[in-house]
Amino acid sequence: MLDHGFVRLDGAMADDLSVVNSARVSFGRRVDELSDADAGLIRFLMRERHGTPFEHNSFRFHVRCPLFVAREWFRHRVGSFNEFSMRYAKATDDFYVPEPDDVRTQVGKPGAYSFEPVHAELAQTTRDELRAVYEHAYETYERLVEQGVARELARAAIPVGAYTEFYWTVNARALMNFVSLRAAETAQREIRRYAEAVERLFAEKMPITHAAFVANDRTAP
Amino acid sequence: MLDHGFVRLDGAMADDLSVVNSARVSFGRRVDELSDADAGLIRFLMRERHGTPFEHNSFRFHVRCPLFVAREWFRHRVGSFNEFSMRYAKATDDFYVPEPDDVRTQVGKPGAYSFEPVHAELAQTTRDELRAVYEHAYETYERLVEQGVARELARAAIPVGAYTEFYWTVNARALMNFVSLRAAETAQREIRRYAEAVERLFAEKMPITHAAFVANDRTAP
Amino acid sequence: MLDHGFVRLDGAMADDLSVVNSARVSFGRRVDELSDADAGLIRFLMRERHGTPFEHNSFRFHVRCPLFVAREWFRHRVGSFNEFSMRYAKATDDFYVPEPDDVRTQVGKPGAYSFEPVHAELAQTTRDELRAVYEHAYETYERLVEQGVARELARAAIPVGAYTEFYWTVNARALMNFVSLRAAETAQREIRRYAEAVERLFAEKMPITHAAFVANDRTAP
Amino acid sequence: MLDHGFVRLDGAMADDLSVVNSARVSFGRRVDELSDADAGLIRFLMRERHGTPFEHNSFRFHVRCPLFVAREWFRHRVGSFNEFSMRYAKATDDFYVPEPDDVRTQVGKPGAYSFEPVHAELAQTTRDELRAVYEHAYETYERLVEQGVARELARAAIPVGAYTEFYWTVNARALMNFVSLRAAETAQREIRRYAEAVERLFAEKMPITHAAFVANDRTAP
Repeated sequence: MLDHGFVRLDGAMADDLSVVNSARVSFGRRVDELSDADAGLIRFLMRERHGTPFEHNSFRFHVRCPLFVAREWFRHRVGSFNEFSMRYAKATDDFYVPEPDDVRTQVGKPGAYSFEPVHAELAQTTRDELRAVYEHAYETYERLVEQGVARELARAAIPVGAYTEFYWTVNARALMNFVSLRAAETAQREIRRYAEAVERLFAEKMPITHAAFVANDRTAP
Repeated sequence: MLDHGFVRLDGAMADDLSVVNSARVSFGRRVDELSDADAGLIRFLMRERHGTPFEHNSFRFHVRCPLFVAREWFRHRVGSFNEFSMRYAKATDDFYVPEPDDVRTQVGKPGAYSFEPVHAELAQTTRDELRAVYEHAYETYERLVEQGVARELARAAIPVGAYTEFYWTVNARALMNFVSLRAAETAQREIRRYAEAVERLFAEKMPITHAAFVANDRTAP
Repeated sequence: MLDHGFVRLDGAMADDLSVVNSARVSFGRRVDELSDADAGLIRFLMRERHGTPFEHNSFRFHVRCPLFVAREWFRHRVGSFNEFSMRYAKATDDFYVPEPDDVRTQVGKPGAYSFEPVHAELAQTTRDELRAVYEHAYETYERLVEQGVARELARAAIPVGAYTEFYWTVNARALMNFVSLRAAETAQREIRRYAEAVERLFAEKMPITHAAFVANDRTAP
Repeated sequence: MLDHGFVRLDGAMADDLSVVNSARVSFGRRVDELSDADAGLIRFLMRERHGTPFEHNSFRFHVRCPLFVAREWFRHRVGSFNEFSMRYAKATDDFYVPEPDDVRTQVGKPGAYSFEPVHAELAQTTRDELRAVYEHAYETYERLVEQGVARELARAAIPVGAYTEFYWTVNARALMNFVSLRAAETAQREIRRYAEAVERLFAEKMPITHAAFVANDRTAP
């Protein structure tokens, strides 16, 4: 993901069967295997926004991404986070420098921007100037820490392009909500890439649920 | 559990290692196996009420219990529920009749009750009279439904001693909160039995975390 | 509400202005009064499912309703509840008896029922039979409690038609979610009446937000 | 607050009476005014960790603080946030420069640091070097934006010492949890100042609840 990041599925308790059984408990029924009719039930639940049957599962992700991506991610309150701490540990010196193709300009109005690539020279300038700020900031950070300034204070210099790392544990309902917002066209390109990776890992574990989600225009139930 | 109930662990993604790794991500560290020092870390997290590392796991329970027990259970908002519906399906004719030893009297003041057994005759009367109400209620329910009254309305006659059934998916932090409140001396005996069963299943999956919880007087972090 | 219930707005911190200001903080702007353009902003937020600006307000309701209504209500996890306790206090002897017009039969399939009135005789039978169960149950409850049986146990006899009472504190976003599900055609008639009352009290405090909600087919953002 | 920040109470629905009435609804009782006995009830609820009666109120704060403070704040999931967006609006050029007395060194081990002031020269160096990074970063940001680079990308250069602004709406129970963690000795000094301000505003609105919280060693119920 991006230049120094990743999304890794660290653990999961997730299958399509749990959706069906938690929905069927309404009728006091339970099955051990999915039948063809069950895909229809899952599509029905998704379409009618019966959300709770999609909560009886869990995905634990290990993520590395820039701070500005993590800041958007942590706005999602249904789910659990533990993150790298710049109070307790030394800041990483990995910073996000966009690929030339990802340096872009914005067109249109807030809430409805679209983005277009910039010409090659500006792309290169952007990369160089970001690197220069990152280096200045990190050298300052290191020098202050070496001289004895507390890490929690010296970190004020660190740009939001710095990478951080965290665990995120979430159920499929909240995951779909995340994907619906963060893999959308209106989302920032950098978090979109992560959201798309999250979606692929979700699709592997719960293919029928994922297909119903896609059929529902990726609107979360 | 009780006369017609159960608690069954339907699925889990839970071990002590995930507590350690989600705590250690603060320092950017990760291990593949627990070492002896890690038990100390888990005790530290529990004692200092660092709660989030206990959230990166998941337990899915399948439960059958009386309605008055379920009503207390569903007050726990962190977690997911899907329940049997008396709108969609016919009510069960299983009702809770306490064992003679469980028929009890209350002593003391609200919020600080204690309970003592009643004499054998009153215990038997209680069981008989509850059964008589249950039978009258259920016969009425069945007769009304047969005559065409909507189930969702006929159910108004069903006493809260009736059994219901549900799935409950929850992480260890919320599970410990549930146990700390519902396995406590002040909790009602019937839900206590369920909370103790939940605790045993939790202890099997996360023995070190459970030991730290017990050492901490079963106060949830 | 129904025969012995009510919904009362006990307190509120709620206006349309807070929606606008919490949305505008994205741009670092703040106004003291609503302008005409702001209604458009509120409609935009609702339509595009930007939900968080609708959370910066609070409604505290005091509600009295049958247990089977409360059981549906308490499934809404975003919000706060405190309820009358049949462990601590003596159960009420108010029970729900539907008006003759509200005695109904169900037609169609689970998840897609429709309801039609029953003939007058069955309506009367239903009311009489429910009353008979309620009386039997309540007399049993009282007799057991008088003889010393703990309230928490004697309550097992109480039917879910019994009234309970609670406080519910909730923000407009969760309130709209409640109304979208519980004032819907698929909701049970009894909770629908409550949801409609909640909606009217909401509309008084936040008329522009409410109008946008209605224009959006009562789909919560 | 700090050099360019503030905490402002933008609205509240909060008094001690609502704690008492939501607790007393357990017994079906309600009062219009607090009596002397009620302070005892509030202390009892706090001590015994009956948390829900403290949720029937709401505080809306308007806050301006550095990004590294906001990052800690937003970890508190029970509550609502809307924040200034560097995707939609131009980043502020206000950055946190600590007062000389606040430049500090850390002593001891992670999780149990203590902090001591540094000598005057290092304090001055720290301030100067942070300012130099901030200026370099902000000039770069402005130059890139002027040349057409999208704001959402150019912001990667902005250090976490930059100020942001948000609304936070929260109930007293979650507010006390925030204060217990963020006004503690182990919390970072900068967020502590904000937490102390939040606590003062809370104490004005709910003095009896606040006194019970203090008497309980600021442990949230």
